[in-house]
Amino acid sequence: MEEKAFQDYYADDVSHCYGCGRLNDEGLHIKSFWDGEGSVARFTPKPCHMAAPGFVYGGVIASLIDCHGTGTAAAAAYRFENRGMDTEPKLRFVTASLKVDYLLPTPLGVELEARGKVKNIGSRKVSVEIDVMAAGKVCARGEVVAVRMPGAMKMSQKE
Amino acid sequence: MEEKAFQDYYADDVSHCYGCGRLNDEGLHIKSFWDGEGSVARFTPKPCHMAAPGFVYGGVIASLIDCHGTGTAAAAAYRFENRGMDTEPKLRFVTASLKVDYLLPTPLGVELEARGKVKNIGSRKVSVEIDVMAAGKVCARGEVVAVRMPGAMKMSQKE
Repeated sequence: MEEKAFQDYYADDVSHCYGCGRLNDEGLHIKSFWDGEGSVARFTPKPCHMAAPGFVYGGVIASLIDCHGTGTAAAAAYRFENRGMDTEPKLRFVTASLKVDYLLPTPLGVELEARGKVKNIGSRKVSVEIDVMAAGKVCARGEVVAVRMPGAMKMSQKE
Repeated sequence: MEEKAFQDYYADDVSHCYGCGRLNDEGLHIKSFWDGEGSVARFTPKPCHMAAPGFVYGGVIASLIDCHGTGTAAAAAYRFENRGMDTEPKLRFVTASLKVDYLLPTPLGVELEARGKVKNIGSRKVSVEIDVMAAGKVCARGEVVAVRMPGAMKMSQKE
């Protein structure tokens, strides 16, 4: 049986994210997993996702960092509460701030590997550091400060 | 005659950016203009560009800030060199670092307005601060540090 990604545990009403929502047919479907103490998301940009021919667009790298960051934050918050991602209440984080340093032009046409490490954790706020690698080199380094999704963003809590 | 956007002055071989390249058929086609002392880009995300139903995906906001930042950097660098954007040599900037603070959930379905202000400028490095507004409220605030595009990213300079 295939391992479920962090994003596969999101509640249906908050699974439409363009970056990582399983219910967004046109989205990027970024998927994150634990890998030892850290987390990993592997993503291959489409040919159109270029900055210039041969290189990945920075906005797509930012999107990968963003969704891998919020996904890692959710997974880490379950761990912090010492319970599985299949338990209630469901946790969902959004990005309060995002920082990306673009270290090298990122080659297009290969799989990118985003590796996340939790830096700070509370039940409502999690900071995650993320390295994005391509062809064995760290091309970008990011940090996401993720916070619990406000109720106003959840369909289930709309009036 | 319609005013040309900053991105319309980019050389053909560096006009394929997914965010703002006029030669990327599948891209977002973000376009930036001067507006008084600052710069402005207006962009309406597609329905699929959601974080959750009714709200804009943070990665798309980051992309808007990214391309409006590099576009403003290029336009400001021409001004710094006291020459028009239709003169040679052509200038093209890429993002060295990107920071976005998401202040409010950004409503989907309305036009976003990104307003840029040059904070620091040299001939090779420009910092731009950008506010992203929706329905009259600042929903995100970003900063882009842009640097001249490395020759290795230009098709015309590839061996």
